[in-house]
Amino acid sequence: MSRTVIRGGLVITAADEIHADVLIEDGRIAALAASGTPAAEAFTAERTLDATGKYVIPGGVDAHTHMEMPFGGTRASDTFETGTRAAAWGGTTTIVDFAVQSVGSSLREGLDAWHAKAEGTCAIDYGFHMIVSEVNQETLKEMDLLVEEGVTSFKQFMAYPGVFYSDDGQILRAMQRAAGNGGLIMMHAENGIAIDVLIEQALERGETAPRHHGEVRKALLEAEATHRAIRLAQVAGAPLYVVHVSAQEAVAELTRARDEGLPVFGETCPQYLFLSADNLAEPGFEGARYVCSTPLRPKEHQAALWKGLRTDDLQVVSTDHCPFCFTGQKELGRGDFSRIPNGIPGVENRMDLLHQAVVDGHISRRRWIEIACAAPARMFGLYPKKGTIAPGSDADIVLYDPHAEQVVSAETHHMNVDYSAYEGRRLTGRVETVLSRGELVITEREYTGRAGHGVYLPRSTCQYLG
Amino acid sequence: MSRTVIRGGLVITAADEIHADVLIEDGRIAALAASGTPAAEAFTAERTLDATGKYVIPGGVDAHTHMEMPFGGTRASDTFETGTRAAAWGGTTTIVDFAVQSVGSSLREGLDAWHAKAEGTCAIDYGFHMIVSEVNQETLKEMDLLVEEGVTSFKQFMAYPGVFYSDDGQILRAMQRAAGNGGLIMMHAENGIAIDVLIEQALERGETAPRHHGEVRKALLEAEATHRAIRLAQVAGAPLYVVHVSAQEAVAELTRARDEGLPVFGETCPQYLFLSADNLAEPGFEGARYVCSTPLRPKEHQAALWKGLRTDDLQVVSTDHCPFCFTGQKELGRGDFSRIPNGIPGVENRMDLLHQAVVDGHISRRRWIEIACAAPARMFGLYPKKGTIAPGSDADIVLYDPHAEQVVSAETHHMNVDYSAYEGRRLTGRVETVLSRGELVITEREYTGRAGHGVYLPRSTCQYLG
Amino acid sequence: MSRTVIRGGLVITAADEIHADVLIEDGRIAALAASGTPAAEAFTAERTLDATGKYVIPGGVDAHTHMEMPFGGTRASDTFETGTRAAAWGGTTTIVDFAVQSVGSSLREGLDAWHAKAEGTCAIDYGFHMIVSEVNQETLKEMDLLVEEGVTSFKQFMAYPGVFYSDDGQILRAMQRAAGNGGLIMMHAENGIAIDVLIEQALERGETAPRHHGEVRKALLEAEATHRAIRLAQVAGAPLYVVHVSAQEAVAELTRARDEGLPVFGETCPQYLFLSADNLAEPGFEGARYVCSTPLRPKEHQAALWKGLRTDDLQVVSTDHCPFCFTGQKELGRGDFSRIPNGIPGVENRMDLLHQAVVDGHISRRRWIEIACAAPARMFGLYPKKGTIAPGSDADIVLYDPHAEQVVSAETHHMNVDYSAYEGRRLTGRVETVLSRGELVITEREYTGRAGHGVYLPRSTCQYLG
Amino acid sequence: MSRTVIRGGLVITAADEIHADVLIEDGRIAALAASGTPAAEAFTAERTLDATGKYVIPGGVDAHTHMEMPFGGTRASDTFETGTRAAAWGGTTTIVDFAVQSVGSSLREGLDAWHAKAEGTCAIDYGFHMIVSEVNQETLKEMDLLVEEGVTSFKQFMAYPGVFYSDDGQILRAMQRAAGNGGLIMMHAENGIAIDVLIEQALERGETAPRHHGEVRKALLEAEATHRAIRLAQVAGAPLYVVHVSAQEAVAELTRARDEGLPVFGETCPQYLFLSADNLAEPGFEGARYVCSTPLRPKEHQAALWKGLRTDDLQVVSTDHCPFCFTGQKELGRGDFSRIPNGIPGVENRMDLLHQAVVDGHISRRRWIEIACAAPARMFGLYPKKGTIAPGSDADIVLYDPHAEQVVSAETHHMNVDYSAYEGRRLTGRVETVLSRGELVITEREYTGRAGHGVYLPRSTCQYLG
Repeated sequence: MSRTVIRGGLVITAADEIHADVLIEDGRIAALAASGTPAAEAFTAERTLDATGKYVIPGGVDAHTHMEMPFGGTRASDTFETGTRAAAWGGTTTIVDFAVQSVGSSLREGLDAWHAKAEGTCAIDYGFHMIVSEVNQETLKEMDLLVEEGVTSFKQFMAYPGVFYSDDGQILRAMQRAAGNGGLIMMHAENGIAIDVLIEQALERGETAPRHHGEVRKALLEAEATHRAIRLAQVAGAPLYVVHVSAQEAVAELTRARDEGLPVFGETCPQYLFLSADNLAEPGFEGARYVCSTPLRPKEHQAALWKGLRTDDLQVVSTDHCPFCFTGQKELGRGDFSRIPNGIPGVENRMDLLHQAVVDGHISRRRWIEIACAAPARMFGLYPKKGTIAPGSDADIVLYDPHAEQVVSAETHHMNVDYSAYEGRRLTGRVETVLSRGELVITEREYTGRAGHGVYLPRSTCQYLG
Repeated sequence: MSRTVIRGGLVITAADEIHADVLIEDGRIAALAASGTPAAEAFTAERTLDATGKYVIPGGVDAHTHMEMPFGGTRASDTFETGTRAAAWGGTTTIVDFAVQSVGSSLREGLDAWHAKAEGTCAIDYGFHMIVSEVNQETLKEMDLLVEEGVTSFKQFMAYPGVFYSDDGQILRAMQRAAGNGGLIMMHAENGIAIDVLIEQALERGETAPRHHGEVRKALLEAEATHRAIRLAQVAGAPLYVVHVSAQEAVAELTRARDEGLPVFGETCPQYLFLSADNLAEPGFEGARYVCSTPLRPKEHQAALWKGLRTDDLQVVSTDHCPFCFTGQKELGRGDFSRIPNGIPGVENRMDLLHQAVVDGHISRRRWIEIACAAPARMFGLYPKKGTIAPGSDADIVLYDPHAEQVVSAETHHMNVDYSAYEGRRLTGRVETVLSRGELVITEREYTGRAGHGVYLPRSTCQYLG
Repeated sequence: MSRTVIRGGLVITAADEIHADVLIEDGRIAALAASGTPAAEAFTAERTLDATGKYVIPGGVDAHTHMEMPFGGTRASDTFETGTRAAAWGGTTTIVDFAVQSVGSSLREGLDAWHAKAEGTCAIDYGFHMIVSEVNQETLKEMDLLVEEGVTSFKQFMAYPGVFYSDDGQILRAMQRAAGNGGLIMMHAENGIAIDVLIEQALERGETAPRHHGEVRKALLEAEATHRAIRLAQVAGAPLYVVHVSAQEAVAELTRARDEGLPVFGETCPQYLFLSADNLAEPGFEGARYVCSTPLRPKEHQAALWKGLRTDDLQVVSTDHCPFCFTGQKELGRGDFSRIPNGIPGVENRMDLLHQAVVDGHISRRRWIEIACAAPARMFGLYPKKGTIAPGSDADIVLYDPHAEQVVSAETHHMNVDYSAYEGRRLTGRVETVLSRGELVITEREYTGRAGHGVYLPRSTCQYLG
Repeated sequence: MSRTVIRGGLVITAADEIHADVLIEDGRIAALAASGTPAAEAFTAERTLDATGKYVIPGGVDAHTHMEMPFGGTRASDTFETGTRAAAWGGTTTIVDFAVQSVGSSLREGLDAWHAKAEGTCAIDYGFHMIVSEVNQETLKEMDLLVEEGVTSFKQFMAYPGVFYSDDGQILRAMQRAAGNGGLIMMHAENGIAIDVLIEQALERGETAPRHHGEVRKALLEAEATHRAIRLAQVAGAPLYVVHVSAQEAVAELTRARDEGLPVFGETCPQYLFLSADNLAEPGFEGARYVCSTPLRPKEHQAALWKGLRTDDLQVVSTDHCPFCFTGQKELGRGDFSRIPNGIPGVENRMDLLHQAVVDGHISRRRWIEIACAAPARMFGLYPKKGTIAPGSDADIVLYDPHAEQVVSAETHHMNVDYSAYEGRRLTGRVETVLSRGELVITEREYTGRAGHGVYLPRSTCQYLG
C-alpha cells in the first residue's frame, strides 16, 4: 500500500472550506482529519506534501474538450497526449471529450476510433460524450448500449446544416430515447439554418472579416434555439444540457425553464466570461484567433453570465477546448470568415481564470470549485469519484497557491497551439502540484506525469436527476 | 345617384356606439347624423331601412378562408360562390382568401388560378393572401410585385413538411423581403417536423382515432413555433401575424413579445373559443368533424384566448373556414387520423358566435366589432373602406337583431357542407339584412344578392405599423 | 337653431382619419359627411369654418389639473378662470380638476368649496374628482352620493404622510366601496413613509438642492407602491387608475397586472415624456421649476413610457397642471428641497407636445387623439359627449394646423405663472381655432371666449369596465 | 480526551453521501475515513456506535422557534427545557429562538430576559434572533452591538399593528442599519394593516370560525408584503430573509427577485408543506389547532412550495414552533378567530416530515439535509460548526433509521402540548440516536441528555453573502 498525506492546507470543496489533512491510500482519498488534532497526527505516510498557505482542491473536471477534432478540413492541434498534459498543468485531472459519429457510420465505429486515439496517451483520466450525427433506428439502439458502457451523454447540433446538424424530429427522437435510457442530451443551440442565410448574405455584401462571424451568429438565434431545445425536451420528458451558452437572452430562457422546474442545465466557457466581440474585431485578420461558435458576444453579455453562475441558472464552466494554430489553420479563413476553423484553446487556463473570478469578486471560492469540479462531475456521472475531496474519492488533488502571480502567454503554455487567447493577461493564483489518483503529475511546477497514466472513465448517468 | 338611408338603429363600430341615421350614396356611406336631429331629418333617399331596435354594424371581414382549397387529395367543399353566399348570410361582407403557390410554380400562376376561381362568382367582395410554398430568388421578387398589386400578405407554414412547409431559412428570407416591401408574413406556427415524429409514433401504437390528432399536435409545439417565428421576425426586422392561435402557451409567447414592443399580432378562431378537445374525442369517428390544425385544445385553454382578446394580445377572430363533408371527405381518414382533411366550416357562424360572446360577457359590443370587422380590415390594408361605418367607407352594413334567437344547424345553414360544427347550439342575435356596397344581399333573411356582385379588393399594407 | 359647418379638414379621432365636413347644430355635432359628396354639400349653416389643410380634432380632455390648489402653505397660481382660458389656448376643452377634502371636513364640504371656485369662471367645461383625505364610515357613505351626482372618481395618496396620506387599510376600504358603487380609485403611488425617511436623511447630510428631490423619491418606491395598489385593488375587486406614472419599473408593474387581465390603468404626463432629472439638476436653484411628484426621472425612463403608451399599458396623458411661480413660490424651498411646492404648469402645452410626439414618430396621429381626448373621456365617464367627433357629441372641436411652427415661452403663454417648463422648445403644430359646445373660444389664435361659458360636467362611471 | 467512533453508516451531508466512519474527539468531529480502509480501521475510541444500515446525518438546525413566547395574553407552552428536549427527540440539535424587545424597552433588556429563560435549561445548543418592536436611534445603535456579540439577525413584522408591527420607514431604517453592520433582516411579510380591515369585516359578518382566519389573511397580501420587503431591502442595499412563506404568489415574488440577482432568501415550514386550509376548516372549533400566521393555504399552494425548495428559491425549512394547548389556550378564540393564539407545535417533527418528503420523491436526501441543517446554519452564521459532518465541526450527529415506521401522535410526542398537528400520520424513518457535541442525548430512542447541556451560540453574520 502506498500512502501520501497532504498537511496543513485549506481544503476547499463545493460544500466546505476546512483546515484538514488529507490521507491518500492506493490512489484514493482514505481520510480527512482536522489539522492539528490527534486524529490528524495519527496519519502516517511514505510521502508528505506540505500545503501550508495553499488551497487543497479537487482536480478540475473539464466536461467539454475536442482533442484531435476534425473540423473544416483540418483538425484540432492538441492530441490527447499534448492536450491532457496541458490540462494537468492547468490543474484539470479529468476531461470528457467528444467522440464523433461520422455520417454513414455507427456510433460504435466513432467511439472505437476515439478510444484508439486516447488509449495509452493521456496524462489524466478521460471519458467520452458521443456526438450523434445521424438519428435512425440503429443509432437509437446504440444509444442504449453506450449508456450501459458509460457513455451517458449525447451531443446534437442545431447548427452546422450538412455537417453535424440534426433537425427537430431527430432531436425529439434522441431526447425520447434519452428519457428512457437515462442519457443526457447536450445541445449546441444555435439556429444554424437561419444563420447560414445570414452568412451567405454577409459574404455577398463583402463582409468577410472575423468580426462578421460574431455578427451573423446572432444572440437572438442562440436564444431561439435554446428555447426550442427546452420545449422539445419538455415534450420528450427528457433533461437537457445546453453547451457553451454565451448570450444573455439564452441565459434568460434557461432561467425561465428552471423557474418552471424543468431539468434544464447550462454550461458557459471562460472565453464568454473574459473575452468579447471586441476581440473578434481586432484589426485585420487578428480576430480569427477568437472565432468559435457560439461566438464571443458584446461585453454587456458578461454580466448576465456571471449572474447566471451565481444564481445557478448556469451550472458548469467548461472550455470547449478546440485549438487551431493561427498559422496554417485559422488562416484557412482569410477572406471568408465562414472558413475559419471554429475553436479556442483553453484547457490549461480554465482553473486559473475562474480563480481570478474569485479574486475579482464574481464568485465565491466554493462556487469556483463547484462550477469547475463538482458540478461537471455530478452532471456527467463521475461524482464523488471525481470533483470533490472526500473519503473514497479518487485522489485527484491540486495544491493551489492563491497568492502566486502569473502572466498567461503562448510562450509558456503547454497546449500545442501557436497563440493564447489570453496572451498577456495577469492572473493571481497558480497550480503548484497536481495528483491524479495519488500520483504526482505536476510537482511544484514540474511535469512528473506520463502519457498513459490516464485511464478511460465509464460514467453513470446524470446525478442531478431523480 | 342611388340613395339609401338607415334610420333609427344603434350604430356600433370598434370605437363608438351612437344613435345615428346612415345615408348611403352610390354604394358608399355619405353621412351619419344623430337620429332625430334636423340634420338627420334632412337626409332624403329612395330607400329607407328601418333599424329601430337593431344594431347597425359594419359587415364582417373574415381574413382567413379557404374556398375550394385543395388538401389531402380532395378540396374544400365550398366554392367561392357558395362560400361567399354563406358568408353574407352570416353578416360577413369581405373575405380574404388564400391563393396557393404550387411547388414548382410561380406565385403569379397560383394567384392567377385563384383569381380565375373567384372572378364573377362572389356574392361579396374578396381579397387574397398568398401562400408561399417555395422561397427562392424568383418568388422573393414576385413578392414585391404582389405587394404592389394589392396582395400584401404572405402565408408560410412551419408545419406540413413536404407540402407547404418552409424551413427557418426560407422563413427568414421571406420575412426580410417583407420587411423591405411592407408585406406581412402570416405564420402557421406549429413545429411540423416534431409533430410528424409524434404522428408516426402514435400510428405505430395503433392510436388512429381523431382525438389523437389533437394529442400529437401538442400545445408546447405550437408555442415553440410561435416563439421561433417571433424571433425570426425580430432578426428580420419584420412584423408577424400568427394565424389560428389555439394554445394558452402560444398566447403567452405573443404577450411576451408585445410587452417587448414587437410588432407581433395574433388571430384566433371561433372553433378554439367555443369547441374543445372534448369534441375531437366524440365516440367512434365522429370527432373527425372537428379535425383542424392547430387542433382544438382542452377546454381550459379557452379562458386564455378570451383574455388575449380582451387585452389585445390577440387582435383578430377569423374562421379558417375550410369545409370538408363528413361523408366522403372526412371519412378519408378512418383508421388514420393523419388522413382526415384538416378544416372546419364556419364562415357563416362567426359574427353570431362572437355576438354570443358579448351576451355571455366575454367581450364588449365594441370589441366584437373590432375583432370581427375593424381589426382584420386594418391588419390587411382595407380600412376604412371596410370594417367600419364612417363617411367615405363602403356601405357594407349589417342590420343585426340582438334579441332574436336561433339554433345553429346544418339543416338551415347555407355553407356547402353536410354538418355543422356547432349543431344544435342556441344563440341570441341574428343577422337580418346585409348590404354590400349599398346593395341588399340579404333582405330580412332572404337572399337578394347575386354571384358576381363581389369584386376583387387590392389591399394596402398593414395599417398597424408605422 | 344655430348652425356651423366645418369644411374640408381631416377629421381625426381615436378610431379614424376621414375627410369629412362636420355639421354643428345648437352646440352638438349633428352630422358628418364625406367631403365633396352631395350629402356634404347639402349641409347649410350660418357659419362656415374652412379647415382645408387642417386637422379637425376633438377638444382635449385633461383629466388631471389642480387649479387654485392649496399646497405647502401657498396655492397653485392659476385660478379656474386663468387656467381654463390657458387650457383653451392649448386646445383643451375639458378639464377634470381635483376637489379636496380637508382633514376634519366632509367630502361634501370640499366639493362645495371647489364648485364655488369654479362656477361662473371657466372658459371651458369642467368636472371634478374628489381627493379623499380621511376614510371613515361617513366619507364612505358620501362616496356613494358623489358617484350618483357625477363625481365618480376618488384620489388617494400613498405619499405625503400627515397631509393626504391614506394607509393601506383606508385604501382597501375605499377600494371596496368603489367596487360597489362603480367609482374609480385614482392613486398617487409612491411609498411616502419610506420616502420621508430618505428625505430626512438627505437633509441631514446637507443635500438640500432640487435635484435631491428626485433622488430620494426613488423609482423603486414608485414601483413598489404601484404594485401594492394593484394588489389591494385585486383584493377589493376594484379597478385602479395610477396617476402620473414616471418610472419604468412602475410601468412594468402595470404591464404585469394587465397581462393578468386586471382592470388596472395608468396615466403619464408630458413632463415625464419630455423632461428628465437633468432638468432638476440645473445649476443653483433653477431645478426647482421642475419639482413635482412623482419626480422627473433619468432620461432612460422615457423610452419605457413611450412604449407603454404604444402598447396601451399606459392609457392617458394628463398634465397634473399645478403651477407655482418661481418667484415667491418655488423659492419657499431654497435651502430645503422638501419645501418646494410640488407642481409644474402644463395645461396649455399638452396637445402640442403630444403632436410633436407624432412628428417625432413616438405615436400615431390616432393614438395622439386617443391618449389626449378619447381615453380620458372614457376613463372618467364623459364619452362620447367629450373626446370624439361623432354625431351627438358636444361640438368641442379644435382646428389644428399641423405645419405651423411655434416656440414655447412664458412670454407668450397664457398660464398665470412666471416660467415655462418647456421654455424655448420648438414645436411643429399649433391650435388655430377652438370650439366649446359650438361656440368659438379661440378664433384664429384670438381669444373669443368668456369666463362662465364653461359648465360643470357630471360624469358617469368609468367606461372601460364591464 | 474522549473518543467516539461511528462505524458503517451512510454519511449524508448537503454535499455528499459517503460510506465513512466518523471519529469524534472531545465533542468535535476529528476525522472521516472511508469505511473499510486501513485508515478507518486505524480509528480507535472508547465508544463505538454501530451505524450499519443507518444514515449518519448532521443534527438538525431549527432556525425559527418560539419557546415560552408571550402571545395574546398567554405564552407558548414549551419552555426552553421541554422544547429543546423535544427537539432532540426529533433529531434537532440546534435552535435559534426569538428574543423579544418589548415596546418601551431596549433590545438589551429583551435579550437578557431571553438569556435568563434559556440558560442552564437546554438539552441542545441555542442561539437568538432579536425581534425589533421599536426602531429608533437607540435600538439602531443596539443592533450594532448585538451583531458584535453574535445576535446577527433581526425580525420585523409587517403584520400585527399595535403589537410587533413596524411601518415601512422603520423597516427601511433597520434594513439600512443591517446593510452596514452585516445583520440580516427577517421579515414576517403580511400586510397587517389591510388584513386587520378584513378581520374586522369578517367578524362583523359573523364569520368567527377558525377557517376565517385563513380567508382574511389572503395569499395576495402575503405576496404584496413580500414584494414590498424586497423593494425596501433593495433600496437599503440589504439582504432579506422572509420567514414562513406559505403562498405560491409569495414564492413567485422571491423567484423574481432572485432571478434579478438580489440577496433575498425564503423559509417555509412543514405545516405549509403537509397541512392545508382543509385543516383550518375542520368541523366546529377543531380547526383552531392549525391557526398560525401566515395561515395554512389551500392544498394547491403546496406544489409551489416544493418546487421552490427544489429550485432553491426557498432555502430553509424551519418550524416556527410556537405551541399552544388546545384546552385553555387555543380555546381563548372560541367565537372570535382573531383571539386564537397563533402557532403550531412542530420542533420534534421537522426532520421526520422532511425525510418523508424524500420517501415521497419531493426532494433528494442531500437536499433534505441542506434545507434542514446546512442552509439554516449558513444563513445564520453557524456553519460549519453546525449543519454538517466534517473534520472540525461540532459532533452534533444523528443516527437515522430510514426504514423504521412511526405514527405521529400527541400521546407519544415529547413537546409540552396537548395535541399534534400531524396526529395519526404514518411516517417512514426515525431518529435512533442523537449526539450533541459528542454527548449522547438520545440513545437508541431513550433520552440520555440533560437540561443545561446546551450552550448559547454566538453567531457570525449570514454566510450566503459576499
